Amino acid sequence: MSLYCAGSSYADGIIDYELFYEQAHQYMTASFVPDGFDCLRDSFLGPYRTEDNPLAVEQGRCFGSQEKGGNHCAVLSRAITLAPGESARLVWMLGEGGRQEAERIRQTYSDPAAVDAAKADLAAYWEDKLSRLQVQTPDADMNTMLNTWNLYQSEVNILFSRFASFIEVGGRTGLGYRDTAQDAMTIPHADPEHCRGRILQLMQGLTSTGYGLHLFDPAWFGPQPEKPAYKSPTVIPTPERASIVHGLEDACADDALWLVAAVAEYVRETGDLAFFDQVVGYADGGEGTVYEHLTRILDFSAEQVGAHGICKGLRADWNDCLNLGGGESAMVSFLHVWALGQFVDAARALGRTKDAGHYEAMRRAVADTCERELWDGSWYLRGITADGRKIGCQADTEGRVHLESNAWAVLSGAAAPERGRQAMDAVDRYLYTEYGLRLNAPSYTKPDDAIGFVTRVYPGVKENGSIFSHPNPWAWCAEAMLGRGSRAMKFYRALCPAAQNDKIEVRQSEPYSYCQFIMGPDHTAFGRARHPFMTGSGGWSYFAATRYLLGVRPQFGGLLIDPCIPADWPGFTVTRVWRGAVYKIEVQNPHRVEKGVASVRCNDQPVEGLIPPQPAGSINEVVAVLGAPAAAGEKEERGTMA
Amino acid sequence: MSLYCAGSSYADGIIDYELFYEQAHQYMTASFVPDGFDCLRDSFLGPYRTEDNPLAVEQGRCFGSQEKGGNHCAVLSRAITLAPGESARLVWMLGEGGRQEAERIRQTYSDPAAVDAAKADLAAYWEDKLSRLQVQTPDADMNTMLNTWNLYQSEVNILFSRFASFIEVGGRTGLGYRDTAQDAMTIPHADPEHCRGRILQLMQGLTSTGYGLHLFDPAWFGPQPEKPAYKSPTVIPTPERASIVHGLEDACADDALWLVAAVAEYVRETGDLAFFDQVVGYADGGEGTVYEHLTRILDFSAEQVGAHGICKGLRADWNDCLNLGGGESAMVSFLHVWALGQFVDAARALGRTKDAGHYEAMRRAVADTCERELWDGSWYLRGITADGRKIGCQADTEGRVHLESNAWAVLSGAAAPERGRQAMDAVDRYLYTEYGLRLNAPSYTKPDDAIGFVTRVYPGVKENGSIFSHPNPWAWCAEAMLGRGSRAMKFYRALCPAAQNDKIEVRQSEPYSYCQFIMGPDHTAFGRARHPFMTGSGGWSYFAATRYLLGVRPQFGGLLIDPCIPADWPGFTVTRVWRGAVYKIEVQNPHRVEKGVASVRCNDQPVEGLIPPQPAGSINEVVAVLGAPAAAGEKEERGTMA
Repeated sequence: MSLYCAGSSYADGIIDYELFYEQAHQYMTASFVPDGFDCLRDSFLGPYRTEDNPLAVEQGRCFGSQEKGGNHCAVLSRAITLAPGESARLVWMLGEGGRQEAERIRQTYSDPAAVDAAKADLAAYWEDKLSRLQVQTPDADMNTMLNTWNLYQSEVNILFSRFASFIEVGGRTGLGYRDTAQDAMTIPHADPEHCRGRILQLMQGLTSTGYGLHLFDPAWFGPQPEKPAYKSPTVIPTPERASIVHGLEDACADDALWLVAAVAEYVRETGDLAFFDQVVGYADGGEGTVYEHLTRILDFSAEQVGAHGICKGLRADWNDCLNLGGGESAMVSFLHVWALGQFVDAARALGRTKDAGHYEAMRRAVADTCERELWDGSWYLRGITADGRKIGCQADTEGRVHLESNAWAVLSGAAAPERGRQAMDAVDRYLYTEYGLRLNAPSYTKPDDAIGFVTRVYPGVKENGSIFSHPNPWAWCAEAMLGRGSRAMKFYRALCPAAQNDKIEVRQSEPYSYCQFIMGPDHTAFGRARHPFMTGSGGWSYFAATRYLLGVRPQFGGLLIDPCIPADWPGFTVTRVWRGAVYKIEVQNPHRVEKGVASVRCNDQPVEGLIPPQPAGSINEVVAVLGAPAAAGEKEERGTMA
Repeated sequence: MSLYCAGSSYADGIIDYELFYEQAHQYMTASFVPDGFDCLRDSFLGPYRTEDNPLAVEQGRCFGSQEKGGNHCAVLSRAITLAPGESARLVWMLGEGGRQEAERIRQTYSDPAAVDAAKADLAAYWEDKLSRLQVQTPDADMNTMLNTWNLYQSEVNILFSRFASFIEVGGRTGLGYRDTAQDAMTIPHADPEHCRGRILQLMQGLTSTGYGLHLFDPAWFGPQPEKPAYKSPTVIPTPERASIVHGLEDACADDALWLVAAVAEYVRETGDLAFFDQVVGYADGGEGTVYEHLTRILDFSAEQVGAHGICKGLRADWNDCLNLGGGESAMVSFLHVWALGQFVDAARALGRTKDAGHYEAMRRAVADTCERELWDGSWYLRGITADGRKIGCQADTEGRVHLESNAWAVLSGAAAPERGRQAMDAVDRYLYTEYGLRLNAPSYTKPDDAIGFVTRVYPGVKENGSIFSHPNPWAWCAEAMLGRGSRAMKFYRALCPAAQNDKIEVRQSEPYSYCQFIMGPDHTAFGRARHPFMTGSGGWSYFAATRYLLGVRPQFGGLLIDPCIPADWPGFTVTRVWRGAVYKIEVQNPHRVEKGVASVRCNDQPVEGLIPPQPAGSINEVVAVLGAPAAAGEKEERGTMA
């Protein structure tokens, strides 16, 4: 038999029970002795052959090929003869590192029992992580996603955070500001320390003006690796600070606003209020507390407004291809409202009532401006161009309805309830497809540089009318806030990879990973998903489903239970570790409502509003009964997202 | 039948008789109607198949697949039935451009006669270019290379000049300073206007300090394209001047020195002495004449010397992986001597005798320093590290002998004749292989950052002991200057692609293109050539073979005939167009010498020294008879390269 691993000399971080031999013949004295190897792809395949018919497989033996600097593969072979009923076990290990590291690994795992133990360790690592939040709902696909794959995908994002992703754009490297902030925001419970580290890196990438560096390497601000004495002319030099801090012309209007929520979620998860007073540097020099950093972000957005008082879109808002410059972005103003709400909650938790009052007044003023300028009769505009044209209005024949602005109008708390319902009805009517919600419709076909590059993207692809996954969960949150659980679940299931396991020939992507986008109905390949794993929908789908649909939401002062589910669900359970205590939550839905908690009991005691933090190590039984929906939203610390 | 063109929507600049249809079905009303097409690779190949067994070929018809933004191919099919003895002609056209351009092309070439005419035009274009220099020698491989392929390769380099080359390093784009200067230097006769344009671009990329921008886009200094209103966050912004002019720490010590010879060769070819007085800007602001630019280059090298008075290596000298920083580079000081010689010749031709005297004194002083500091007993050092260690000395066990410094010691005119012969004997003894001359030997195996990245490259690969093609012709020039024609030809033939047509399974590259390097004897793949076309050996091999082996060298004041050939050659002919006149040169070698011109006759009149420029349009018969080698070198305007 032979194992053929295409690719070059790096592994993908997933530990498995195979060892990649950099030079296999060095290790042929091991207890598991291969009887042949190939390190050169061309030798293994043979001339004029492909992976369909490798010569080494056809002839039943390898060539022992190896070379420094060639086009490598890793092939080991071992012939075995089995008597009737006999079985054999072969252990191959795949790892990353130099020869010494390989020798160490080989030694460590030369006993198959050590391999079994390592496998068990890995399982325990994930078991621990996953056990912090487990659900049992009537929806099997949702259970599969939330209990295993969704957190796994989110963790991959946190670990690599687009840092190593070359899927989309060759040469791009570094932390993406907005993506990293959202990754950190959405799964703080899985690894709070890592989350805190990522947040501090982002704090260092914030300018004192209040915008973030759109793409940066944390090493620029951390301890610098020693500059090598030699330098090939093609190596990009380590940048000087003056050259890495880009100006306002390269700032994206949304980047830093996400960080406000990331900090708030980290503290809601951990209770670590002191984090707000940690001192961190600014990218362009100087320093301030985390709290001060956040005020710079909020003040920046308050200043950077256009002719109608709506936040400027700058180089881009969340949508990379909406390039408004001095034009105005509805989404950013809604994000501003939302971030202000997050901050006001925090200021209150810290007892800084004067700041809370100041920023609450700002929040109300921005929300009022949004309501005045952005409502278009049946839904919200996406923005206003620098030359004063409305984007996403009833009169438009292309890009008429947009997902981001309508979802955020609700999610931010800015929209009046009736307008919110109308806006989300428009989303359902114009943007819903069986693969999820489109970003906009109809797709653009005519270039319009005042709107941006989106108007030049092929219809149905990426930002132009595809089912862009990242904003889909925003709509689930919005519907949950409006109390429409059936529709929230309809949107959830349309995007759910596990629910599309039988459409693999259309979707063409793994059924356990959200993808960056799915080709929209305006494209010939409608339904085809692309760019798995590295997408903000990883974290956001997990966040929206657990906190808004299932409704288990940590607050600064306690745990909120506020589900929004389809009326035909009899109930569900959630096991949640929060601040060191376990909460076994059973939600009962005897009256078959979609939203509204009638009563909560914790360890058989009635609870009004939030469940107070229980002692670390304790295991707590929580029973929530749905019934009277009216008062539910009011229990939350804010009317905004929390 | 079907034609299958893999790849995406760009062509490679080579006009051929096939048309690439962006969307083939748009053009199916043409007189040559395909009966099927595929634009999607996956459709054409079919699921679980490869190029070995495309489904469309197997089933004999295409799928008509097309998609915006997919993984494309261009497949057209046409079924034909031939009666016995019948023949048919199918014309497929491949082009570059949008739909309108495609329609225009289709219309233009809908008549097969127009296709034939276009093919004839293309042939005439090359016929004209190639006819400016044609040779007939006793060596058939040399004839093939010089008369067709070598100029073709050089022209490809001039045309793209590494600008579009992603062979080696992803993301690199722009003109490489040193490579472009050498490309322009080596084939000015093929397109003098284009050559002049390239030189002016390089002049604009020169800093007023006298070093060149190592990699730059001429558009930075020419008319700027309008900045687009939209900008995707992954687009690299148009740089500001302050950010594109790199500092001395990123300067390569050799870059601008090549430009001195490029200007000299351009003027020797064209006689355009006024070019020296053309005013051009500097990269960092200000302007000066071409002549002044050259003095800045020469003065820069005179100032940038290390502890022993030898030029500093800076970020790199010609060798990208020799990173000496403040250490000293023998090659750069020899280049400096050579460039000074070029400039002194020019200053004399311009009648600027004071400058000529000043820089001739500098040239002699630098040459003396080289002879004093760099001779190591049997060959020349490669350099001296910043901490004072000799590189490439007798005591070394790795990197003991280097090609560049020994070839340039002779080529620059700095080496005393006996030392020059010894140095080149060491090259022959230690660096010669059947595939050409190695860059150094033995290959490095121990990292030494005072020498540079070369010590970390795999032995036998690229800069570390491979047969790096670019410097090979330098050794041919050196041997020709030493009068050793047999050895020059031995070196020539070892690298000659046409002479290795029967080693394709080892060489693995086309037998008509020089490659960047050939794996050296310290590597398991010894003899394998890599990176065809885009290599400085394209121009240099042509330059060295025609000007030094065959010895037809334009000078400022006339045409020099000074061959150096194997003694067993009875003679050869060269037809050369120079300054608008044709020279039909016959070289006779009745005494079977390797070098030394006894007599020259032009149009049956005896010539002393240089052949004076003849009237444009004239055809001139030149007969040179070899015989008494002693006086040959003295006829040249300089003892240096000319």
